[in-house]
Amino acid sequence: MNKISNNPVYDISLSYQKTAALNAAIKLDIFTAIGKHCLTVEQIADVTGGSLRGVRILCDFLCVIGLLEKNTNLYNLSVDAKRFLDRTSHHCLTDVIDFLAAPEIVSLVMNDPASYVIRGGASGLTTLSPDNPVWVTFARAMVPFRSVAAKRTAAYIARRSMHPRKVLDIAAGHGLFGIEVAKVISDASVMAIDWANVLEVARRNADLAGLADRYQTTSGNAFEVDWCDNYDLILLPNILHHFDQDGCVCLLCKAKESLSIDGSVFVIDIIPNPDRVSPPEQAAFAFFLLATTPTGDAYTCAEYETMAEAAGLTLVDSMQLLPTPLTLLQFRF
Amino acid sequence: MNKISNNPVYDISLSYQKTAALNAAIKLDIFTAIGKHCLTVEQIADVTGGSLRGVRILCDFLCVIGLLEKNTNLYNLSVDAKRFLDRTSHHCLTDVIDFLAAPEIVSLVMNDPASYVIRGGASGLTTLSPDNPVWVTFARAMVPFRSVAAKRTAAYIARRSMHPRKVLDIAAGHGLFGIEVAKVISDASVMAIDWANVLEVARRNADLAGLADRYQTTSGNAFEVDWCDNYDLILLPNILHHFDQDGCVCLLCKAKESLSIDGSVFVIDIIPNPDRVSPPEQAAFAFFLLATTPTGDAYTCAEYETMAEAAGLTLVDSMQLLPTPLTLLQFRF
Repeated sequence: MNKISNNPVYDISLSYQKTAALNAAIKLDIFTAIGKHCLTVEQIADVTGGSLRGVRILCDFLCVIGLLEKNTNLYNLSVDAKRFLDRTSHHCLTDVIDFLAAPEIVSLVMNDPASYVIRGGASGLTTLSPDNPVWVTFARAMVPFRSVAAKRTAAYIARRSMHPRKVLDIAAGHGLFGIEVAKVISDASVMAIDWANVLEVARRNADLAGLADRYQTTSGNAFEVDWCDNYDLILLPNILHHFDQDGCVCLLCKAKESLSIDGSVFVIDIIPNPDRVSPPEQAAFAFFLLATTPTGDAYTCAEYETMAEAAGLTLVDSMQLLPTPLTLLQFRF
Repeated sequence: MNKISNNPVYDISLSYQKTAALNAAIKLDIFTAIGKHCLTVEQIADVTGGSLRGVRILCDFLCVIGLLEKNTNLYNLSVDAKRFLDRTSHHCLTDVIDFLAAPEIVSLVMNDPASYVIRGGASGLTTLSPDNPVWVTFARAMVPFRSVAAKRTAAYIARRSMHPRKVLDIAAGHGLFGIEVAKVISDASVMAIDWANVLEVARRNADLAGLADRYQTTSGNAFEVDWCDNYDLILLPNILHHFDQDGCVCLLCKAKESLSIDGSVFVIDIIPNPDRVSPPEQAAFAFFLLATTPTGDAYTCAEYETMAEAAGLTLVDSMQLLPTPLTLLQFRF
């Protein structure tokens, strides 16, 4: 993304405009409209229902931030937009903005940011009721973004000749991690735990993958419901970062209790380096959690290892799920 | 500013976090607290009143976006932060965030951005009543950012041996442009027109500059109040971009009517290249105006020339007020 101003204060003070412009362009589906053919402002306005003035100014701004290119009066997609923002692309990520820039999330982050720094956390999303639609938005929106990581997780299992037949997916969300495992292990059955409304999304994804008869669900709070036991593989994908270390240890203890003797626990999460300021995306994630959760954090690998040890689990392997920002940590007894 | 994610969709979807982090850091005055000495999280929390967790996560995020540097456990200011964010620096710009990221502005831009693209404008700030505090915030917040441009304007006058004795400053805001002119032309008197509450800011700045006896004000809407006449110099600084071309021509006609026979009109504004997608800062400004005004625009030099011609004025000279993004256009009969 190009810088808008050489003055960093001005540039950062107005960074939120970039999110707004991308959001507007996705809602009007401008990137798909342009697709492979250069279009004029008039043509884009005609296809998307935007006003001439609005579309002209928006498209020029999208050129400034590197998502469109302008040649005299014709707009075309940049390489990034072709890959990630045209809905006909297999790599299309447009839906993630429905969660990342959802009004509920934006107000948590933008309204009085000093307050969560002073308090050390936000009342945040975890105080939203389980049936809040934002969770369903989340489960749906993150599918394109997490599917690569889920496939890499399944590949990790296949490459190590692991053969988990009973799989537990905690806070399954979209359900992709469990689903991808079940796709490579043909006799694996998956139990997914999440809120009831979110499980509908996971179940639909499981149905679409042809896994209806190997997919079960338990609705409720992962801290409270019975997980049952004897699982060969317990997945904790993008869940532990929501909680403080005690909360993480609590879930890791439940995982250990529910594991078969030679089973594995996969923590799949955004893990910064020990310096906590690199890599940029992983390090920055802690700020999102400060703004949107009471006590969540982007824990380092060493912190996960310590928490797992407290729960009686040992780190046996780890792998970055490139090109995603996620890392897989494998724990066993 | 460093990119947070190599994935542009993820990076732009979360751009607003950067504004929130800078805003929090300025509100807690973290940059001044660190000043010239490296500090630990504990020391920064102690000085600023932030929580340990909040300060640690915020400071790490500020490292990611290039405003702080971390050396083991010590945080230091980056070169940019030293210059622009430490309140003891003469170049300190921290106040601009009070306007650029004011809640009123952020909600105009972030709430339903597709709507202003579809409609071609926002009901926006111009529908706010003249006594809305945001205008005073604006006049105060933009002082550090505009003072360089105001000094460059005064230097332009001095270098061309112009000698305006009657100066009119339309929508004076902070008043800096008229004030700087009066500082270099010792017998110049300034008439400033703006809303009454904003003029208090301008008048205070004039008093501070020792210009109390050469500074007069008329409160009201620039389209409606009588400007009087026979001015040697009429300043239109950062005002025309709020209006459509008819509105601009209307103000330029009033300027022509109020000008002495050899007087000059200075349009000082953010003017993109004819392609409207460069330079980035000037081109991006149109999007801010789309989101916050009903019909405003970042006009090109050719457009200003055409509008001025319609008002009976001719472009005689222009100068970029570097390093600011503003350009000065000089018009005469």
